[in-house]
Amino acid sequence: MIHYDLIALDADDTLWHNERLYEATQAGLAELLAPYGIDVPILNEHLFKTETGNISLFGYGIKSFTLSMIQAAIELTDGKIVARDVMGILSLAKAQLTAPVELLDHVAETTAKLAQFHRLMMVTKGDLLDQERKLTRSGLGQYFHTIEVISDKTVETYARLFKNHGLEPERVLMVGDSIRSDIQPILELGGTAVYIPYQVTWQHEAGDVPASGTLRFYQLDHFGQLPALLEELESG
Amino acid sequence: MIHYDLIALDADDTLWHNERLYEATQAGLAELLAPYGIDVPILNEHLFKTETGNISLFGYGIKSFTLSMIQAAIELTDGKIVARDVMGILSLAKAQLTAPVELLDHVAETTAKLAQFHRLMMVTKGDLLDQERKLTRSGLGQYFHTIEVISDKTVETYARLFKNHGLEPERVLMVGDSIRSDIQPILELGGTAVYIPYQVTWQHEAGDVPASGTLRFYQLDHFGQLPALLEELESG
Repeated sequence: MIHYDLIALDADDTLWHNERLYEATQAGLAELLAPYGIDVPILNEHLFKTETGNISLFGYGIKSFTLSMIQAAIELTDGKIVARDVMGILSLAKAQLTAPVELLDHVAETTAKLAQFHRLMMVTKGDLLDQERKLTRSGLGQYFHTIEVISDKTVETYARLFKNHGLEPERVLMVGDSIRSDIQPILELGGTAVYIPYQVTWQHEAGDVPASGTLRFYQLDHFGQLPALLEELESG
Repeated sequence: MIHYDLIALDADDTLWHNERLYEATQAGLAELLAPYGIDVPILNEHLFKTETGNISLFGYGIKSFTLSMIQAAIELTDGKIVARDVMGILSLAKAQLTAPVELLDHVAETTAKLAQFHRLMMVTKGDLLDQERKLTRSGLGQYFHTIEVISDKTVETYARLFKNHGLEPERVLMVGDSIRSDIQPILELGGTAVYIPYQVTWQHEAGDVPASGTLRFYQLDHFGQLPALLEELESG
């Protein structure tokens, strides 16, 4: 039997919809570039390559994505993109930053329930200010003891994070939608990982789902199933 | 007599040179825009206005600054800026992100000395990844117990930060070069603040220096004077 000292929750596409905002922004970019004769598959491929190339310098989040969109647009149009359309890219970014925060199903009531008997920590990548603002607007802020925005979700960053908070990884349960960022590092550290797949996964976050029966690994269909799993684990 | 549980250190222009990197980037922008007939004072004024207008949305740091540079350049050239020059702005940003970290005088040996008997925390605004990378490249990483990148340096964010780490503000000493961000909020919380002015202050950070004799406020000429002040305070 175990009692978890901490439930760590990923935010984007675990608590609230996020990937579809990026997709809408990217669709807006495709529209801006269509008059230049840029095909959507070519745009998507080049943008992903640009993002990946820039991540080590710019990190994650919407500002980084915007800089990559501008770079990719200039490259794809051979420098023909006009300034008005670059401004259009900035407007797409501002629209995304101010878009309403839409919670996933079951999240509001389940988070409140989880917070009754457990300390909750939100652990995300992305822009600090943007994530703080989303948490505030989500109405979930009151349930979280700590918000941690980290530059990457690796074994090392999680290990340091737990150490800083005086937590044993064995007594941490992490919930998220990314195998690579939320599940694998936690399992490697000896923690418990709960995978709740989202309808779309950002290409960058793809990873192999651990085999069923993997120790301390659980998969759920939706967030609302979390309290029952937790009860089972803590009484089992 | 007091013993400080924590010495909190601002980073940009307290540990390492920063403002002059922004100035070099901005000078590069002025050069890019000169062929469009944009005068430097007009550029500086409009860029500052753009940055200030974008801070609530984009936050602090080089990515935010880059997006504001692009926006200001488009606006100032009435949309005439060509894509090649927008790419030039992106290159300026990448150059700044990879610029060598240059420590201020006395910082290397003084930080090592401070870390012998005190827990050190780096507290900065800006881009998370960029600040982590600068700390790593500065060679000072080993001396810091914690790195905190926060979205704004207000009384509320400091209060939450200290609370999260179980710290009484009365037993915190904060060192920085910004009256508005590093000094005023700490004094208001009941902590001790040490102001070490930098040669240039970013317009946004300007603030009135507290009157001499202000309780728990100290001003030094350089970082190397910190251990002596600390010894005086802790034995006094």
